[in-house]
Amino acid sequence: MSNVSPLVDSLIEAFQCLPGVGPKSAQRMVLHLLERNRTGGQSLALILGQALESVDKCSNCRIFTESSTCQICLNEKRNNKQICVVESVSDVFAIEQSNQFNGHYFILHGHLSPIDDIGPDELALDKLFSRVKNEEIEEIILATNSSLEGETTSHFIFDNIKDIPELKVTKLARGVPLGGELEYVDRGTIMHAFTGRQDLRGKE
Amino acid sequence: MSNVSPLVDSLIEAFQCLPGVGPKSAQRMVLHLLERNRTGGQSLALILGQALESVDKCSNCRIFTESSTCQICLNEKRNNKQICVVESVSDVFAIEQSNQFNGHYFILHGHLSPIDDIGPDELALDKLFSRVKNEEIEEIILATNSSLEGETTSHFIFDNIKDIPELKVTKLARGVPLGGELEYVDRGTIMHAFTGRQDLRGKE
Repeated sequence: MSNVSPLVDSLIEAFQCLPGVGPKSAQRMVLHLLERNRTGGQSLALILGQALESVDKCSNCRIFTESSTCQICLNEKRNNKQICVVESVSDVFAIEQSNQFNGHYFILHGHLSPIDDIGPDELALDKLFSRVKNEEIEEIILATNSSLEGETTSHFIFDNIKDIPELKVTKLARGVPLGGELEYVDRGTIMHAFTGRQDLRGKE
Repeated sequence: MSNVSPLVDSLIEAFQCLPGVGPKSAQRMVLHLLERNRTGGQSLALILGQALESVDKCSNCRIFTESSTCQICLNEKRNNKQICVVESVSDVFAIEQSNQFNGHYFILHGHLSPIDDIGPDELALDKLFSRVKNEEIEEIILATNSSLEGETTSHFIFDNIKDIPELKVTKLARGVPLGGELEYVDRGTIMHAFTGRQDLRGKE
């Protein structure tokens, strides 16, 4: 591209594997590291190499971890009778930051999508179903995205576990988001908010 | 941050050494690489390590290169009697893309800034001045940024070489940018455009 240094050019090229990084930002990143932060760049290269080498999916919940079982699954203070099923690891990060859930997770790494050849096997649903059968699970919380694919995936999972006696299966509440102005909330959400409305008197 | 994997956490941290990358985008980059592009990530780690190890400043023009002298300085088809002085390597990339200049460069890697302790030594001006004296240079093009610091730096360089006989010293034209609407161009630029106005008849 610049015809100045093949190595600098390939580095600019390599940075474009990152999401949202095009030629211009890649060039800015490369020059920034070479010019002002070589130590930071060195440690990025080192840690990135290490992580890609040793980080894999937890054998239990499929979150990314460098151990065979992750720290959430090993944590004895967490409730191992609840499993929250999510589509991706970033969902786990978001839920953990809310401090609202203290159970275990199961990460699908995607959703059912026949057109992309993603079926139950790709989401390792066997592993989820065997956990539900073999461990003393009391509740499955289906927390897939509120999209068509997410809902379909949740529905498929529910269909496969609904016959297990005494297993509670829930999904996250749909409704008006915090700070959301009713005027700008879409029709579908308002519909959900109405059907899921709560009796204030009952809560007194 | 996520308490899930120390290695993933330090990788998210490490990505924040890049310009314009905060915790959220760093997390997105890390999960993207782990989930979808491990090969791309591996080669990024490898090339980044190599580049930081072996890319340094060209002994002649101070551009980044893995050789001791860069491909621009070694290219015999380029005019070695012209030196274009710029503040940063990204300026060289921009000028090269315009295909308008076929001479050599000198990269200052900054501008004079006494408040940050950046003087002539930090910009390696000695090297520039000795090139002007010892090589058969015919023209120095001062292409620093059109900012107060850039202009000051250009002026300082001009002061030090103006007494060399038969050396042409030029600076880039200031004026209305291509596609710029006069209504939205600032006062200073309009001033420059007027004082630098060109006689159309003379060009016939």
